[in-house]
Amino acid sequence: MRVVVIGAAGLLGVKLTNRLIADGVVGGTAISSLSLVDVVTPARPENAPFPIETRAADVSLAGTAQSLIAAQPDVIFHLAAIVSGEAEADFDKGYRVNLDGTRFLFDAIRQTGGGYRPRVVFTSSIAVYGAPLPETIDDDIALTPLTSYGTQKAIDELLLADYSRRGFLDGIGLRLPTICVRPGKPNRAASGFFSSIIREPLNGQEAILPVPETVRHWLASPRAAIGFLVHAAALDTTDLGARRNLTLPGVSVTVGEQISALRLVAGDRAVALIRRRPDETIAKIIGGWPRGFAPTRALELGFRGDTDFAEIVRIYIDDELGGRIA
Amino acid sequence: MRVVVIGAAGLLGVKLTNRLIADGVVGGTAISSLSLVDVVTPARPENAPFPIETRAADVSLAGTAQSLIAAQPDVIFHLAAIVSGEAEADFDKGYRVNLDGTRFLFDAIRQTGGGYRPRVVFTSSIAVYGAPLPETIDDDIALTPLTSYGTQKAIDELLLADYSRRGFLDGIGLRLPTICVRPGKPNRAASGFFSSIIREPLNGQEAILPVPETVRHWLASPRAAIGFLVHAAALDTTDLGARRNLTLPGVSVTVGEQISALRLVAGDRAVALIRRRPDETIAKIIGGWPRGFAPTRALELGFRGDTDFAEIVRIYIDDELGGRIA
Repeated sequence: MRVVVIGAAGLLGVKLTNRLIADGVVGGTAISSLSLVDVVTPARPENAPFPIETRAADVSLAGTAQSLIAAQPDVIFHLAAIVSGEAEADFDKGYRVNLDGTRFLFDAIRQTGGGYRPRVVFTSSIAVYGAPLPETIDDDIALTPLTSYGTQKAIDELLLADYSRRGFLDGIGLRLPTICVRPGKPNRAASGFFSSIIREPLNGQEAILPVPETVRHWLASPRAAIGFLVHAAALDTTDLGARRNLTLPGVSVTVGEQISALRLVAGDRAVALIRRRPDETIAKIIGGWPRGFAPTRALELGFRGDTDFAEIVRIYIDDELGGRIA
Repeated sequence: MRVVVIGAAGLLGVKLTNRLIADGVVGGTAISSLSLVDVVTPARPENAPFPIETRAADVSLAGTAQSLIAAQPDVIFHLAAIVSGEAEADFDKGYRVNLDGTRFLFDAIRQTGGGYRPRVVFTSSIAVYGAPLPETIDDDIALTPLTSYGTQKAIDELLLADYSRRGFLDGIGLRLPTICVRPGKPNRAASGFFSSIIREPLNGQEAILPVPETVRHWLASPRAAIGFLVHAAALDTTDLGARRNLTLPGVSVTVGEQISALRLVAGDRAVALIRRRPDETIAKIIGGWPRGFAPTRALELGFRGDTDFAEIVRIYIDDELGGRIA
């Protein structure tokens, strides 16, 4: 089985690559080759049990997608995207990469012909939902994005469903929860604090909390997200019917519950490193975001998320800190 | 007030033109000029109280949209589209006209700059909804198109909302019910019988009914549809918030109720002209369509549809037959 990962240099791309190398298979079928693609050449992993190709390519340029699928891969993970903040700041770039790039890819597949119909696993986002929203969002609620990023993802979902319905590809779109705990440095994303209030204290550093503890959001660990991607690559899509896009299981927690879980796992000393510094701008942005979902279809299709937020904290400690707290 | 109608040669375009000429105003403001655009040059109406320009132009060609809005019209009615059947038969053409054409128009407006922010009234369709659906679809139900046409309209809705949110245009999208009674000849559209079982008998001709009388659908007269377009052109869009696309009021009737209304208005002699000829293919297509809506937001915003199906029959007789039945 030939596999391509587009967007392989990002957080999920790197973790997915490591998982594919560890597994050696997708859905029980041995991986025969892996192509890693990003706008910068992805790092080449060592000790893979199959040949790996690494490529720098920009899918938002017409013609690029054709070369990426020339070997007719069986599974294409399409993770490449301009993130929310940048898509809002640079309107043209966001649409070029997040809409045109995805459409170029889908069209390149369609135009291959000869019965070529690969599995395409596409990462969408809960950013396709925007306020006003019910407290718990079920699978039948309308997509109402309040950002250009969310709009582009919602459009990609529609394309994925239509191209799948027409038989051009075998697509599945995954509305990933907000990933937490993200490894790395604090960033300026409005959602950054969901990770940093856990990550910084576990690394012995102070963290800023800009919103009240009552704020509720929908989170999944990086490990759970990779589990979704791998499960989606091997799923029997006849069970999906025409609805090719799924909201995935997350953990709906308040910031207060996040902090309680941090205390449970790492004690008061960690919690004491969280500094309250209210930021009205961030609070307002977060106010339009989803608080929780009832991802019934994904659960029925066998997708499994994190058990609770304490597990998410422990996954960060295991996967990023070698099991040890600073 | 400068007004442009793109798609002016179609059923709704012609009726909208006549209404604008009759009114002379949009939302109380006098029309100073009207530009009529279609892929074929629209007929030039006579006796208009303002200058009228007619143009043949294809909005799906890059660069065309710029010339259509060079005079910076205040209101743009964008009705142009490839219909459902053709968009399904010709994948490229459907996406080129229904998606790219609309995006070219929106981008041309965006790139005008200088604070130019026209009202854009866009005709979407209930084809953005596909089975499985609740018996009555409220304003918060997810868009799940089962045709490329419905997909393209759903994408256009997302673009309209995002471009409006960003302040590039002041858009409103109207999910029109199936238009009934359409004047003219029988056509091969799957929806054609909803009109032809009324139109043909009123013209003294036989009509074919391919589905059971229990089939329920969501209909509006051409006159009601034009009322929606005109109301949308003058609406205070601050009341819309970020949700720029509306399901409009229709009449939810079964085919049996359509026939009862025909009997009420035109008697048994008309009803006797309907021939039952079951068609499994058409029945299956119609089975995936919406049966009824609760268009709460549109009603709150002052949109008014037909009272009942008997009124729809009478509107056809008044507007197309000069008030007389054959």
